[in-house]
Amino acid sequence: MSSENEATKSVEPSDHAERLRELVDSAPAEELQLYLSSLAPSELGLAVSRLDEDRQVAVLTRVSPEDAASVVEQIPESQAIDALDRLEPGVAAAILQELPSNEQADLLGELKDAGAEAILDRMDPHEAAGARVLRAYGDDVAGGLMITEVLSYADHLTVGDVVEDMRQNADRYSAYVVQYAYVVDAEKRLIGVLRLRDLLLARRERPIRELAIPGPLTVRDDTSIQDLRAFFDANEYYGVPVVDAESRLLGVVMTSAVEERLSERSEDEYLKSQGLVREELRSMPYLRRSGRRLAWLSVNILLNFAAASVIAAYQDTLSAVITLAVFLPIISDMSGCSGNQAVAVSMRELALGTVRPEELLWVWWKELQVGIINGIALGCMIALAAWIWQGNPYLGAVVGCALMLNTLVAVSIGGLLPLVLKRLGVDPALASGPILTTITDMCGFFLVFSIASMVLVKLIAS
Amino acid sequence: MSSENEATKSVEPSDHAERLRELVDSAPAEELQLYLSSLAPSELGLAVSRLDEDRQVAVLTRVSPEDAASVVEQIPESQAIDALDRLEPGVAAAILQELPSNEQADLLGELKDAGAEAILDRMDPHEAAGARVLRAYGDDVAGGLMITEVLSYADHLTVGDVVEDMRQNADRYSAYVVQYAYVVDAEKRLIGVLRLRDLLLARRERPIRELAIPGPLTVRDDTSIQDLRAFFDANEYYGVPVVDAESRLLGVVMTSAVEERLSERSEDEYLKSQGLVREELRSMPYLRRSGRRLAWLSVNILLNFAAASVIAAYQDTLSAVITLAVFLPIISDMSGCSGNQAVAVSMRELALGTVRPEELLWVWWKELQVGIINGIALGCMIALAAWIWQGNPYLGAVVGCALMLNTLVAVSIGGLLPLVLKRLGVDPALASGPILTTITDMCGFFLVFSIASMVLVKLIAS
Repeated sequence: MSSENEATKSVEPSDHAERLRELVDSAPAEELQLYLSSLAPSELGLAVSRLDEDRQVAVLTRVSPEDAASVVEQIPESQAIDALDRLEPGVAAAILQELPSNEQADLLGELKDAGAEAILDRMDPHEAAGARVLRAYGDDVAGGLMITEVLSYADHLTVGDVVEDMRQNADRYSAYVVQYAYVVDAEKRLIGVLRLRDLLLARRERPIRELAIPGPLTVRDDTSIQDLRAFFDANEYYGVPVVDAESRLLGVVMTSAVEERLSERSEDEYLKSQGLVREELRSMPYLRRSGRRLAWLSVNILLNFAAASVIAAYQDTLSAVITLAVFLPIISDMSGCSGNQAVAVSMRELALGTVRPEELLWVWWKELQVGIINGIALGCMIALAAWIWQGNPYLGAVVGCALMLNTLVAVSIGGLLPLVLKRLGVDPALASGPILTTITDMCGFFLVFSIASMVLVKLIAS
Repeated sequence: MSSENEATKSVEPSDHAERLRELVDSAPAEELQLYLSSLAPSELGLAVSRLDEDRQVAVLTRVSPEDAASVVEQIPESQAIDALDRLEPGVAAAILQELPSNEQADLLGELKDAGAEAILDRMDPHEAAGARVLRAYGDDVAGGLMITEVLSYADHLTVGDVVEDMRQNADRYSAYVVQYAYVVDAEKRLIGVLRLRDLLLARRERPIRELAIPGPLTVRDDTSIQDLRAFFDANEYYGVPVVDAESRLLGVVMTSAVEERLSERSEDEYLKSQGLVREELRSMPYLRRSGRRLAWLSVNILLNFAAASVIAAYQDTLSAVITLAVFLPIISDMSGCSGNQAVAVSMRELALGTVRPEELLWVWWKELQVGIINGIALGCMIALAAWIWQGNPYLGAVVGCALMLNTLVAVSIGGLLPLVLKRLGVDPALASGPILTTITDMCGFFLVFSIASMVLVKLIAS
């Protein structure tokens, strides 16, 4: 697209990407670095995300690790992972060391094992050891969401010792979350929480043991993200200490990390419901984008053929009453819509925790109540429209009954399918839609034709 | 549903709701309060969310305002709002006073003006004034997301004054986020940020003006949520001070509030894409649930009739080649899937800010690349299947060409529609799907029949 064709006022994003492309291709590293630091963070992310992979790798290689790290934070995660995968392990290690521990762990967790190991081998051994521990946790448990940059002090120290330590390490601690410090015993077990403002009000000689609030609320490292959200809903903290089975302090989970991860998950869910398996951005190579979309579409077309075979089986009925063909796509689409509404409510309720995968009967009953009303309403609408349009009340009755009954089928399956798939360990966001529409199509076509067969004489008479 | 029918092990959610229902109906308030406090917060939310509205109101009325506030925090927001709307304004005011300022403002913002005013009139005048200000901001700007419980001190004070204030107000400040204190001048303009640990290291006589970090980063009260996320991506803070046009300190936006709101928005987007306009929970009255779903379904059925009228217009061609009816729903569904994938990517890119509503040509070009490949792939699949299944290569060619061309139409419209709707101020999450499928259906059916007409002799010959 040449920019002369652009019938718009604001063309900055493409302009930045264009300029960046030129600089990557021809300018010295210093000029590139200068340009990158002239961009606002969001512009930087936008511009780099528009580059192809080779140029993204070139940018990350040619600027300082600090600048490369801020680029990695700004571009979408899937691009950051692809780029890290293609960088020299030593370069990738230098960049990762500039990121906080939870972001390090996130990115390393998404890399293939061999690639992650190569990078970890080249990191500072102390930091690598921490990253290895974090990487072993899943994304959706406290251990995978926590940061390890926290202040902890042995319980025999005094207020003065702590203040002195803070003075000496002021630089290093400046990136820490220091609303609290944690008091641990000789075995690193968490025994209390020290509020900084209490330190402020206390005499220097006082042992911190006396000052700390004993028995602080903690979570285990394997606490699920749902339980973490429930915890933060119930307790107005911005962070909670994470401990292992022996009560040893491992880190702190911030409520913002929990919310960010939940936000990612619900974005994923919407994308998956359209068969977009991994985050797609239009700056990715088009072959990969079409390949990913096609994988899901191919399964869908097979399922569509299964559904269409019902129509093929009833070709005699159809050729006798050709008008039925007009209503088949309407019944298919409307049943799909009703069913997908039930899927979306179930997905939402599962995510909120207001329904559990076992509660099939409760969900079914709740969906049937809605399905009966909406089935009658939609059935009457289509019946009336068919009657008026085609001048045959029997035709109206056939398609009306079919849609009414099929709405009940659709909301039942739509409501229950996510619960059943979740219990079976299949991702309900990805699979519910195609399975639902295949069943509702087959069932809908079957209902139309079998009801039509019953009153065939009346339909042809018209 | 009687619980004997439940073929499951874990039936606690319904059990709690059942027990709660009994207590609400018959037990004295103390027993109810005792039971509520025996539940874990997540169980509490689940159990109360399952009650009908009358009983939810009864719970909130009969327990202490503190307990009622924690119930309000635990149940889904739409239920909390409905309940507050039905409570005596005085009771609602007492409950709201127990919540932090941003949650107060959230709930008040969702209430109708008359209802909100009645509650505000009964709140503590000082708190009501603050809530009125916050309520005036939209949900998606810094002013609507900030908390106002922050520590600020006049610049002429000393470290000793601040420590003394903290000592005297320790109780009140215990709910505050006190990693930082803010230094303001006589006009309440923010002039510096005071780190608590710097207070810790300083002599008591020192003026805080000297200690504060001058020129802190701030955001304006009208900063959008996208800009806030970009800010927190670029700056590793857990909160940022919010100022008005005169640089006066208004509050602090925490990154967790930004992430929580974004998470809500992407959940909403998925629900809206299925026509669920406002959060639906199965514990809501079924008439309201079916009414909300039906509103969107009714628009859809009208659009479906518009699309089906294309089939009706070609009934002659169809009765000549009845097999075409088998392929119409396949073409309709597959085009819808391809188009909805493009819609989902556009929605995602708009949310991430990696595309702007003006960049129509760029998006179109990117979609065409994918559409050409996927169109050819899907077209060949359906052509081959149709040929083998029905034994007529011409039939294969007709449906193959139709699906190929319609895939291009689908990805183009799907990619561009969210951008266009956004520019027109129409909610793209809600409207993109129905508009897309109507156009792709009409276009797909038209392509099938018009291509079929061209080779009609070959199709009938078989």
